[in-house]
Amino acid sequence: MIRKNGSTPLNLSAVSGRLVGSRHGPIAERWSSSASWSWERAGLKNFLAFVGSPPIQVRLWDGHVAEPDATVPIATVDITCRATLWRLLIWQSAAFGDEYSIGRIRVDGDLIGALTAIAQDTNVTTKSTVYKWLYKMTQRPPRLNSLQGSRRNIQHHYDIGNDFYRLWLDREMQYTCAYFPTPDLSIEQAQQEKMHHVCRKLQLKPGDRVVEAGCGWGSLARFMASNYGVNVTAYNISKEQIKFATESAVREGLSDRVTYVEDDYRNIKGDFDVFVSIGMLEHIGVWNYKTLGEVIGRCLRPGGRGMIHTIGRNKPRPLSAWIARRIFPGAYPPTLRQMMDIFEPTNLSVLDVENLRPHYAKTLEHWLQRFDRSESEITEIFDEYFVRAWRLYLSGSIAAFRGGSLQLFQVVFAHGANNDVPWTRQHIYP
Amino acid sequence: MIRKNGSTPLNLSAVSGRLVGSRHGPIAERWSSSASWSWERAGLKNFLAFVGSPPIQVRLWDGHVAEPDATVPIATVDITCRATLWRLLIWQSAAFGDEYSIGRIRVDGDLIGALTAIAQDTNVTTKSTVYKWLYKMTQRPPRLNSLQGSRRNIQHHYDIGNDFYRLWLDREMQYTCAYFPTPDLSIEQAQQEKMHHVCRKLQLKPGDRVVEAGCGWGSLARFMASNYGVNVTAYNISKEQIKFATESAVREGLSDRVTYVEDDYRNIKGDFDVFVSIGMLEHIGVWNYKTLGEVIGRCLRPGGRGMIHTIGRNKPRPLSAWIARRIFPGAYPPTLRQMMDIFEPTNLSVLDVENLRPHYAKTLEHWLQRFDRSESEITEIFDEYFVRAWRLYLSGSIAAFRGGSLQLFQVVFAHGANNDVPWTRQHIYP
Repeated sequence: MIRKNGSTPLNLSAVSGRLVGSRHGPIAERWSSSASWSWERAGLKNFLAFVGSPPIQVRLWDGHVAEPDATVPIATVDITCRATLWRLLIWQSAAFGDEYSIGRIRVDGDLIGALTAIAQDTNVTTKSTVYKWLYKMTQRPPRLNSLQGSRRNIQHHYDIGNDFYRLWLDREMQYTCAYFPTPDLSIEQAQQEKMHHVCRKLQLKPGDRVVEAGCGWGSLARFMASNYGVNVTAYNISKEQIKFATESAVREGLSDRVTYVEDDYRNIKGDFDVFVSIGMLEHIGVWNYKTLGEVIGRCLRPGGRGMIHTIGRNKPRPLSAWIARRIFPGAYPPTLRQMMDIFEPTNLSVLDVENLRPHYAKTLEHWLQRFDRSESEITEIFDEYFVRAWRLYLSGSIAAFRGGSLQLFQVVFAHGANNDVPWTRQHIYP
Repeated sequence: MIRKNGSTPLNLSAVSGRLVGSRHGPIAERWSSSASWSWERAGLKNFLAFVGSPPIQVRLWDGHVAEPDATVPIATVDITCRATLWRLLIWQSAAFGDEYSIGRIRVDGDLIGALTAIAQDTNVTTKSTVYKWLYKMTQRPPRLNSLQGSRRNIQHHYDIGNDFYRLWLDREMQYTCAYFPTPDLSIEQAQQEKMHHVCRKLQLKPGDRVVEAGCGWGSLARFMASNYGVNVTAYNISKEQIKFATESAVREGLSDRVTYVEDDYRNIKGDFDVFVSIGMLEHIGVWNYKTLGEVIGRCLRPGGRGMIHTIGRNKPRPLSAWIARRIFPGAYPPTLRQMMDIFEPTNLSVLDVENLRPHYAKTLEHWLQRFDRSESEITEIFDEYFVRAWRLYLSGSIAAFRGGSLQLFQVVFAHGANNDVPWTRQHIYP
């Protein structure tokens, strides 16, 4: 799906329209271009303290510069007009994202480093100020993930074009955390290693019937079938991804062993030896975890194994308001405590939890590098706003995984009374 | 501490006194020895259905036998008088334990198998009957674990004599789950492997300062100091254990590197590279988890690692009323969800969770075998009631770990912002 320049899927047109509008008319222009007021500069200073005094320099439209406390700045943030400052102080991360995408906030220097300094959980929650109040006010509760709503949310992100994702993901189009046995692996190798890591954790045996909930472009399903001799039924509600996955399976001669179903995980039917879900839990919403547990309880055989791979948190906190609005509507990274709503009611036993946080930072670094290399092609498909927005999203995600405000959990489980569980985890490390 | 026959530390004298009393007096005798009534037999039948229709045969004092539904019984339970039946139906597990210890309930055949059939979580909670109501009524909330109360609870179990524990634990007196890389290891080997497993998870380096909360007889502290060259400060509130541990460290020439402190974990002071706690969490009570997290947050250096090893559950449920009264006052096995009260408020990041449930069943099998071999010596130290009670406790624990109503969690963690975390878990499996 190639889009023409300007038809960005981010719904930013309203924001950019406001910008163009505000430049016209003599009153708006005078208001916007006059020198910054002392209480605006004081407000900015307090705001920087509120977000943890990151080592950045902020330059206002009139040339005023707010320097960091006693450190050399790693980046300079340009705020190019008064309205942008006001929006930033009120709407915080949501405004930062939009104003950066539109180009009214510019960052020179180490963007990821600056975001990492801000991304720490503790910084935004320790002090009680007007900014904390605004932070809480501007967090939008995620949209309800009904069967209909889920489809809308997923299509917003995943159906913007396989051609686009092909430019910067690995060959197999895996849009989830890779696994690097050593940090110097290529992203292609690390994504293959991830799939082996998952398959080893699941102890796949030839002939096993596997169900996958949320299969992306279907690479894991095909990999399991061709490398471990299992039969896979894989569910996904992204039309574009299912189409791509089915075509790939036909091309690779795997359509007798892999079936892709364009349907919701709640409609999974059948009886399976293995349940696996990679990167879907973030999208289903905590209030659906019990339902997911029931689905697993119903479709997993008494002696079966399961795994869920998901972005998570150490403590509960909504997704950044900007990410939730522009990038991943309806998404939410759960804590381990929240994940227990899947397992406890159905008496599933958690066998193994691995936190792969550093691996996701590394994965995202590879993606960003490839994204930047394809900048001109992506600008061609979408527009410059889109490129800036996605660069911010990828950079902010690196910062969150580096800074520890996001985690990556792989949770292996089985039915509570199942004694056919692995004796040790040695088999994962051959 | 050698005790004379009859001075059992189980406080069973009141129960056994009642037995002796009820045998005297003509009315009591007539009441107790008359044939079982039809509604008593019906009550027993319903009770057996309530506990999941285990494959056991129950024989009453008058010779009446309740057969299991359509299975060959694996054990015969003798209920030797009317009062015992009534107590069993009302007080359930609490009465079973006491009446078994006193000898008024006898079990011939596969005791562990029978208990395993009963130990499943699901069986007691699915049906709504008068027994379910009684089950809930007879669950006592655990005693509050104040600084004083903890001391009393711990001394009840751990200070009944090192000579006793020496008879059936391994050489190093480890009274927690062992780790069997292969199931055929001896308990001596498996306890050594457990300590290596823990040390590898903690990535000990020579010179590390380690704090241990709840050190038992101090074997892990000495093991870490002599095998990994670290300095250990180990806390415990059991007087007998601390005395044993300190003497052992002196004897092994380790007293310059290992310090045992007779004090509560809440009083831990200092600054450490590593925090470790093996089998203490079960004793501190869920309402103290946040405090434990604060202690860890305070004493663990920003780049440090930690591990908690504990008995747990898949879903919340109090300890058996009998175990809570006679064996482990104040104890409670938490779910992973409950454990998050330790980590979340202090922003500790869970890196790795391993469930070693089958290993604890295996460990207990070794202990029970050794316990049975030392029966006459243990009877000499305590009395026959004590031997029966502890055999039931060990057998019931095997049943609980086999049946899946108890779990064993090892949780590795670090501060949320610590990026000095292991890249993979390969180092645990050299």
